[in-house]
Amino acid sequence: MTGAIKQSLAAQAADLASGATTATALAERALARATEHKALNAFVALAPDAVLAQASAADRRRRAGQALSPIDGVPIAVKDNYLTEDYPTTACSRALPDEGEGIDATVVGRLRAAGAVIFGKTNMHEWAFGATNATSSVGPTRNPHDAERITGGSSGGSGAAVAAGIVAAALGSDTGGSVRIPSAACGIYGFKPSYGRASRHGVLPLSWSLDAPGPMTAALADIPILLPYFFGEDRNDPATHGAAPFAALPEVGTPRVVHLVGAGLERSEEVGLAVTQALRTSSALVRDHELENVESYFAAWEAILHGEASAYHAGRMERNPQAFSPATQAHLVAGAQLTAVELLQAQRIRARFVDLLLRGIGAWDAIAMPTLPVVAPRHGEDWQEFGGRRVTTQDSMTWFCWIGNLAGLPCVSIPVPVNAGHLPVSLMLMGRPGQDERLLAIARWVDRHLKGTR
Amino acid sequence: MTGAIKQSLAAQAADLASGATTATALAERALARATEHKALNAFVALAPDAVLAQASAADRRRRAGQALSPIDGVPIAVKDNYLTEDYPTTACSRALPDEGEGIDATVVGRLRAAGAVIFGKTNMHEWAFGATNATSSVGPTRNPHDAERITGGSSGGSGAAVAAGIVAAALGSDTGGSVRIPSAACGIYGFKPSYGRASRHGVLPLSWSLDAPGPMTAALADIPILLPYFFGEDRNDPATHGAAPFAALPEVGTPRVVHLVGAGLERSEEVGLAVTQALRTSSALVRDHELENVESYFAAWEAILHGEASAYHAGRMERNPQAFSPATQAHLVAGAQLTAVELLQAQRIRARFVDLLLRGIGAWDAIAMPTLPVVAPRHGEDWQEFGGRRVTTQDSMTWFCWIGNLAGLPCVSIPVPVNAGHLPVSLMLMGRPGQDERLLAIARWVDRHLKGTR
Repeated sequence: MTGAIKQSLAAQAADLASGATTATALAERALARATEHKALNAFVALAPDAVLAQASAADRRRRAGQALSPIDGVPIAVKDNYLTEDYPTTACSRALPDEGEGIDATVVGRLRAAGAVIFGKTNMHEWAFGATNATSSVGPTRNPHDAERITGGSSGGSGAAVAAGIVAAALGSDTGGSVRIPSAACGIYGFKPSYGRASRHGVLPLSWSLDAPGPMTAALADIPILLPYFFGEDRNDPATHGAAPFAALPEVGTPRVVHLVGAGLERSEEVGLAVTQALRTSSALVRDHELENVESYFAAWEAILHGEASAYHAGRMERNPQAFSPATQAHLVAGAQLTAVELLQAQRIRARFVDLLLRGIGAWDAIAMPTLPVVAPRHGEDWQEFGGRRVTTQDSMTWFCWIGNLAGLPCVSIPVPVNAGHLPVSLMLMGRPGQDERLLAIARWVDRHLKGTR
Repeated sequence: MTGAIKQSLAAQAADLASGATTATALAERALARATEHKALNAFVALAPDAVLAQASAADRRRRAGQALSPIDGVPIAVKDNYLTEDYPTTACSRALPDEGEGIDATVVGRLRAAGAVIFGKTNMHEWAFGATNATSSVGPTRNPHDAERITGGSSGGSGAAVAAGIVAAALGSDTGGSVRIPSAACGIYGFKPSYGRASRHGVLPLSWSLDAPGPMTAALADIPILLPYFFGEDRNDPATHGAAPFAALPEVGTPRVVHLVGAGLERSEEVGLAVTQALRTSSALVRDHELENVESYFAAWEAILHGEASAYHAGRMERNPQAFSPATQAHLVAGAQLTAVELLQAQRIRARFVDLLLRGIGAWDAIAMPTLPVVAPRHGEDWQEFGGRRVTTQDSMTWFCWIGNLAGLPCVSIPVPVNAGHLPVSLMLMGRPGQDERLLAIARWVDRHLKGTR
């Protein structure tokens, strides 16, 4: 396939508003493309009748002048760790969740109330505990740009579904990059909100102090259309207490961007050149900043992730560990062996890390890095080599992304121009905690310059 | 001794202001009383020359009309876990701190800058890891009301020094009641601030997510005189970032007080009668509220305490565990054996506990309990029996107090009237997080009614 046939959510909403298309036409096209791209293994559940019924209801509302929102009738795919009242939720594991069937996650419920067509459940890395999407009860996803390549994960099905032009937008979740990794590997846009601004209620946890749900979209402009459904206080997610609803993007001038470099932040030549070129094209003011002791901060992220995941899954591991894949079992056993002292040391390192990063930004506007240090790896490759490093494919996927989770920062992944025939490369921008709108305004500035449409 | 000769900090400040006394006279009297009460073992370090030099400097300032503050020249004793630039700091342990000598804790530095005479370092339970003050490198403290009784701890020396009328005020620290326990056992006032409002910089940690420093005083009116030196932002204590400085007490009407009862909140008949009578005398509106699952919340407090203490002391335990007393070593070994999953479960229970307590208060003003379930135990008593319970003397000391630390609430311990010849009993009031001033205003209302001086 070519990556070019993607149509944005914004464009679909405009076409619905003008009458140039109908929800039924969008749903039929999405279903047809899903069939056409079945080999990508993007979906774990997809019920055409239910999709068409939702679309038909949306069309009736719109004809009656009673559209619920601009996205009434737009198909949106949902990662299989969001509870949905119509589809089962399995986290792509045979170790099934205890969480209630038949209810919607808060974000899904809000989208449904706005008339969005809940299009199907997307394939994911088992319980989101991995970034390759190689481990899933329904098998790995395949990258629309090259079926021999992985999508990355854990929201790999969402990445493939958007990149293949099946849907313009899909929901992901992100604990160490799981929204941004498949977005970058598949050449689409992905956004991880600041910790605590977006509701996780009904999104199965991986690590509650790191998790954030987020949108994955065909266009950057689609993200601010969707974030109002993610953001703001949800009494069922204590982390959102006092959280501000999503606001309009501010106007920004030439962004001043701190480019993070240093040991532990290496990238392949291909990615390095594309990102450096993109930063130049963006006309942003860029300065390099060396982040030290990256490995100790990474270890803190990993300890918190493993500890919290093992605490969450303790009952499931006690009852029937074999239901998990061997890889996930191994992670959960490792987490159970962590001591309280090790975890506390990680939590303390984390507290210092946020200060350190913010001091690194100083008065500047954002942090920049590649989203991934490599282009999408091939299936079956266990190791990646880049910048003098040899790391597991798993670690190469979270290489830069975990920083945003450990620090709770808003992060956006933006595809940058690459030469024809090359695999996607993305630039990641990170903002200050809670300043998601400002980060998106900076991203808009950069993206327009990259596209030459300023 | 009798408890009656205590003179308040407010009275001392007034006498200094009027010229009725001098700092030197106050210092000399305090030194004389310290000598007279040497058997209490309240002080671990006390340098008369340094005290008199500070007092003399204060007198010179005041004569020159250049008093630094109303407390310029007032002697204040300091628990031996506050760093002090003049006295060594040992936490009453042979396992000495690594923290720098020759610097003042933030609170000590602020008091010193206000001209307070830093009077000496008070005896404490080793590293604050216990509530009896029986374990200390310099031996146990003795209760001024009855030398056969313990002071409670861990700020036992501060409690004894104030109760014996050596100083009107002393500094304590409180992780599970260590300010309030000796205040109650010795019949003085003690205040534990809301978590994060008072600076801990330079106060040796026991458990950083539970610790709060606080004043122990001869009169309730002394507390608002001292809290401005504790409260407000300190860049060296991240927990205080954004913390409000201490404000004037609001005026309050008849307080509505929720009296916590239930399994795990029993108290001796003697204490129960005195506290019930005090609540009646106070004319506050009182309703009982049953707190359920107290034991699981207590276990969460204990897990967090042990885990954090073991993380903090890890290096010291590796280098030379024998330097700790056997009791403290045992605590630290227990903490090191906790798993990350156990700690995370405790942290999650803690998060729910705050909500639960605040729902329990509803729109009412404060929570009430006895500070201790028993009067000061005798030295060498390992067990206490009350209300059908048989618990260790250690657990009887923290019986009610840990609630305030686990929930981060402001707490004040107020001696209530007891019949002549009886040991002190105190009422504890707890307020909403951050509403320390309001809690103190309620305490003032109650205390005036108890004294019949409304």
